[in-house]
Amino acid sequence: MDHNQLQTYYSGKKALITGGLGFIGSNLAIKLVTLGAEVTIVDVLWPDHGGNLFNIEPVKKDAQVNICDVRDECAMRTLVKGKDFIFHLAGQCSHVLGQSDPYPDIDINIHGTAIIMEAVKKNAPEAVTVYSSTRGVYGSVDKLPVNEETPTDPKGLYELSNLTAEKLIKFYGDVHGLKVVNLRLSNIYGERSQMLHSKFGVVNWFIRLAMMDETITVFGDGKIMRDFLYIDDCVNAFLRTGASGTAYGETFNVGNDQHTTILELVNVILKVVGSGKSRFTPFSKERAAQEPGDFYPDISKIRQAVSWEPLISLEDGLLRTTEYYRRYQKEYW
Amino acid sequence: MDHNQLQTYYSGKKALITGGLGFIGSNLAIKLVTLGAEVTIVDVLWPDHGGNLFNIEPVKKDAQVNICDVRDECAMRTLVKGKDFIFHLAGQCSHVLGQSDPYPDIDINIHGTAIIMEAVKKNAPEAVTVYSSTRGVYGSVDKLPVNEETPTDPKGLYELSNLTAEKLIKFYGDVHGLKVVNLRLSNIYGERSQMLHSKFGVVNWFIRLAMMDETITVFGDGKIMRDFLYIDDCVNAFLRTGASGTAYGETFNVGNDQHTTILELVNVILKVVGSGKSRFTPFSKERAAQEPGDFYPDISKIRQAVSWEPLISLEDGLLRTTEYYRRYQKEYW
Repeated sequence: MDHNQLQTYYSGKKALITGGLGFIGSNLAIKLVTLGAEVTIVDVLWPDHGGNLFNIEPVKKDAQVNICDVRDECAMRTLVKGKDFIFHLAGQCSHVLGQSDPYPDIDINIHGTAIIMEAVKKNAPEAVTVYSSTRGVYGSVDKLPVNEETPTDPKGLYELSNLTAEKLIKFYGDVHGLKVVNLRLSNIYGERSQMLHSKFGVVNWFIRLAMMDETITVFGDGKIMRDFLYIDDCVNAFLRTGASGTAYGETFNVGNDQHTTILELVNVILKVVGSGKSRFTPFSKERAAQEPGDFYPDISKIRQAVSWEPLISLEDGLLRTTEYYRRYQKEYW
Repeated sequence: MDHNQLQTYYSGKKALITGGLGFIGSNLAIKLVTLGAEVTIVDVLWPDHGGNLFNIEPVKKDAQVNICDVRDECAMRTLVKGKDFIFHLAGQCSHVLGQSDPYPDIDINIHGTAIIMEAVKKNAPEAVTVYSSTRGVYGSVDKLPVNEETPTDPKGLYELSNLTAEKLIKFYGDVHGLKVVNLRLSNIYGERSQMLHSKFGVVNWFIRLAMMDETITVFGDGKIMRDFLYIDDCVNAFLRTGASGTAYGETFNVGNDQHTTILELVNVILKVVGSGKSRFTPFSKERAAQEPGDFYPDISKIRQAVSWEPLISLEDGLLRTTEYYRRYQKEYW
C-alpha cells in the first residue's frame, strides 16, 4: 500500500487514538489526518510520559482532542462509538517503574486495555483495534533474529503487562470475534518523543545529550545488539496492519532487520548531531536483571502479510529527528 | 517428608493463608494447625466463591480468621508482618466469568497478587510465598504429558490472570530476591469445595449431582482426558514445596499422572456414590473456544525436587469426599 492506496482506504474513516498526544500516537494522528481520516485523540497527559499538546500542532484544527484516562470506563464507551479504528497506544511506558511500583503497569496497561476492549465489544464491534506492544515480551532469547513463534519471557512488569494486554486483546478476537492486531514494537525513535528523561525512548535521549554536547552513558561494553526503527516506518506498520483483513487476529514484530550495537548507534548519533561524547559504565544490579541481551526481530511475517518494511535508514532517521528538535527544542526541554 | 518431618518443619511457624476459608485454603489451614503452625486466614467470603466458615470448623479455635479483601493494601501490609509463609490462594476462580466481565480476573488475581507481593517485599522479605496457579495456563497442548517447559497459551482471562500472577510472583523472586513457588494445579477435588454451582470444581459438582440422584451432563463425547487430584495430595504439595529451599523460584505442576477420561470419571462417581445418571450434550460455542482438549501433567519435576507424588487413588478420594458431604450436606447446599 502506497500513500494513494492508504488514502483511498482511510479517507473518511473514523479513528480513535489512545495515547494520541504521545510520541507514536501523535505521529499516527498527523498521518491519518493527511490521509483524510477523522481523528479523535484520547490522552490524559500522564505525568512523566510523552503526552504533549505541541505534538499535534500540524493537525490541531483537524484532530479532536479528548483529555481523559483510558481507565474511565464510561468515557471510553462513548468515545469508541462509531469508530472504524481504535489505535490503542496509551500506557505506562517506563521499563523500570514496576520495580518500585507495580500498580500502574497492572492498572493502566492491563485493566485499561480491558476497558478499551469491553467498550469496543459493546459499542464498536466492527472496529479494528491495533495495539502497540513491545519486543520486550520476548525477554532474553537464544536465537536471532527473533520471530513471533519465539516463546515469550518478559523480564519486568512493563513487559509482562504488555504481554498480558496482548493476550487479553487476542481473547477478544478469538472469543468475541473482534478484529484485533498486536504489534510488538522494537526501539522506535524520531520526532515528537518526550526528551525530558531517559526512562523510555533511549535513542531520542541520546540525541538530546549529543545536541547539548553532553556525555552519553553506554552500559556494559556497548556490544549489545538492537534494532532501531524510525517513527514514520512505525506509523506505516499501524496503518497497513489496520487496513488489511489478513492481519486481523495476528501478532507481528515491527522493527528493523538492520541491527546495530548500542555503541555503533551512539557513534552514528555523535556524527549526525555533530556534538556530544560517550563513556562506558557498568550495569546496575536492577538493570542487569531486566536486561534481555541481544535482540533483533525477524520481520518476515509482517512483510509477507502487508508488504511492510522499514524504508528509512538509521542515519536518515537520526538526521530528521535532530532537525526537528533543533527547530522545536523549546517545546520539549 | 513424612508427617513427622513436616511437623518438625512447620511447628511454631507462622502462616498466612489467603482464601483460607475456601476449598484448598481451609484444608491447608487444618493441616497446618495439626502440624503445630500458627495460622492466620484471610478471606473476604466473595459471593459465589468457595469461602465457607464451616470449612474450618475443626480448627476454629486455633486458626485466626481475618475477613478482608486481598486488594486491601493496608490490611495486607499488616497481615504479612512476622509471617514465615504466605500461601496465596485467594482469587476469582470462575473459568468463564471473564467472557462477560474481565475485571475480577484482572483486579483480584493480578492486582491482588501484586498487593500481596508488595506487602511481602516490604514487611516479610524472608517469608516463603506459595501461589496456587492453574494447569489452564498451558491452554491446548500438542504433547502429553505436559511438563513445565511447555509454552503457555492460556485460553481465557481466568487462565491468563493466573499466568500473569505467576510471572509477577517470579519477578519478585528474580528481581527482589523473595522466596516464591508457583504451583500449577490440575483438577482438585475433595472435602470442603463449594457445592452450590458448577462454575468451578467439576468433580465435586458431579458428586453432588450423583448424591441427589440427578443427571451429570457430559460435554462432547466425554473422551477428553484429564487428571484429578485429591485435596490431601494437593495440600501436601503446598507444604513440601513451601518447606524446601530447592523449590524456591520454581514453578511446578501439581496433578495426577494417573489420567482418565471425563466419562470414566463420571462412571466411577456414579459407582462410588451409588446413585445418579449421565447424559451427553454438545459443547456451546463459548465453551468450545475455551476448551483446551486433552490434558495430563508430567509431575517428574516436583517428584524430583521435593519427593511429592499423589498417594490417594481416584476411587478412595471420591469415597472420602462423598462421605464428608453425606455427613455435612446442610453446610454446603
